[in-house]
Amino acid sequence: MTGKTIEELNPGDSAHFTKTVSESDIYLYAGISGDLNPAHIDHEYASNTFFKARIAHGMLSAGFISAVIGMKLPGPGTIYREQNLKFLAPVHIGDTISATVEVLEIDPERKIVTLATRCFNQDKTLVLDGTALVNPPRKR
Amino acid sequence: MTGKTIEELNPGDSAHFTKTVSESDIYLYAGISGDLNPAHIDHEYASNTFFKARIAHGMLSAGFISAVIGMKLPGPGTIYREQNLKFLAPVHIGDTISATVEVLEIDPERKIVTLATRCFNQDKTLVLDGTALVNPPRKR
Amino acid sequence: MTGKTIEELNPGDSAHFTKTVSESDIYLYAGISGDLNPAHIDHEYASNTFFKARIAHGMLSAGFISAVIGMKLPGPGTIYREQNLKFLAPVHIGDTISATVEVLEIDPERKIVTLATRCFNQDKTLVLDGTALVNPPRKR
Amino acid sequence: MTGKTIEELNPGDSAHFTKTVSESDIYLYAGISGDLNPAHIDHEYASNTFFKARIAHGMLSAGFISAVIGMKLPGPGTIYREQNLKFLAPVHIGDTISATVEVLEIDPERKIVTLATRCFNQDKTLVLDGTALVNPPRKR
Repeated sequence: MTGKTIEELNPGDSAHFTKTVSESDIYLYAGISGDLNPAHIDHEYASNTFFKARIAHGMLSAGFISAVIGMKLPGPGTIYREQNLKFLAPVHIGDTISATVEVLEIDPERKIVTLATRCFNQDKTLVLDGTALVNPPRKR
Repeated sequence: MTGKTIEELNPGDSAHFTKTVSESDIYLYAGISGDLNPAHIDHEYASNTFFKARIAHGMLSAGFISAVIGMKLPGPGTIYREQNLKFLAPVHIGDTISATVEVLEIDPERKIVTLATRCFNQDKTLVLDGTALVNPPRKR
Repeated sequence: MTGKTIEELNPGDSAHFTKTVSESDIYLYAGISGDLNPAHIDHEYASNTFFKARIAHGMLSAGFISAVIGMKLPGPGTIYREQNLKFLAPVHIGDTISATVEVLEIDPERKIVTLATRCFNQDKTLVLDGTALVNPPRKR
Repeated sequence: MTGKTIEELNPGDSAHFTKTVSESDIYLYAGISGDLNPAHIDHEYASNTFFKARIAHGMLSAGFISAVIGMKLPGPGTIYREQNLKFLAPVHIGDTISATVEVLEIDPERKIVTLATRCFNQDKTLVLDGTALVNPPRKR
């Protein structure tokens, strides 16, 4: 079970993972991460914020990017080096988030691949934007 | 319940959150994020990798940073703008991770605060390094 | 804590367990099992399928049968040998599923009991049908 | 996102999913399914059973088969018709289970594919054996 090696990757290659974000995702993630910010778990508080409702943790959507990188592109064996994230729009309970990963640049000498990493909601709103640097798995 | 406003923050202010990473944290996070990479959930596979054992998702440690920002510094009401992450060392089951957040720069005009965000394990090894940009909560 | 021995069982004996299937049941089960099929976790995808909405994993309902066998009939100490399952109708979020187990045949020589195992929803629709073979617990 | 159609499948095609079974998997599954049989969640009781330790629910391993069918072979869009299961050996906390699915027979008229479904532990012991009947997804 090995992902794609640097030789098997080309600029423009892409993969994605889609999930509807549930209340239980947010609550479990709150418990795991320790981020019990009332914006995520307090309906009364959240109703009085700019967003008018509880929102998902930005890092929860970032995890979907990690899922694509670790499972599909490049996939198992990848070493995750860096990830830059811009949180652009809130994710609400019931939103369906698609994380997409696309190969931007390949540096064969340093064995590093730059990926465009983005999350969109069901309305095609870009909720998370960024880039990642990874070392793809080596040939077996 | 409101965090610190930009007027209440000073460079050098810091806060942290510490948690021992359990197998169940990793397994639940795998399920929530969809990142079922065998490095995280397959002991036999992971034993044959460079890291010799199952490791936590890098984004799991990143969540602890989010916890400090959302809960303590600046705390509730903060808008999370950007997060840059460098994954420097693996986190194993049973490692105790301290996420620390420190105020680096304050831009009163743009209402933006730059934070140094780091995670250390129990041996003081820096496992995750980066910076975050946030808008602290406004005065009520 | 011991279940019923083969001597204590009679054809027609029955027991059941009922649970309303929540979104969090489905999401947790997806994470535990690794079955992140979009029919279960992607509302947008599922809306365009024959079933028009996210559905529960068939194996989730099968677990309710296991609960009746392991907890009630025959109960603790039972060895689960075989289970045949026919998935007959979808289970949606919010459906209330009753798993029923009934003694069909008793083979005292081989110490094997055949059970009818069925799951119904709140409208009495048979969603799962099958039979199980078990060894009831021995006398203590 | 669609799995393989019946035309794209051939006898002998196979796929698998591997996971190390954790205590938290068993505990969460107990909670979801309602199967709180002491063999799964009571260490003291389980220490005095034939298996000498808490064991996983047989249906938990069956879920890994469902994961392969729903995610890989045939994959998204498959309708799960029947599953026969023989529970052959116990699964303990820490065992690494590989669920394998292999195409046995293809019936193009009835649009039904018969799959061999098996789970092995890290010692190649067959812990679960059976067959499944599925309708692969149609051409789009």
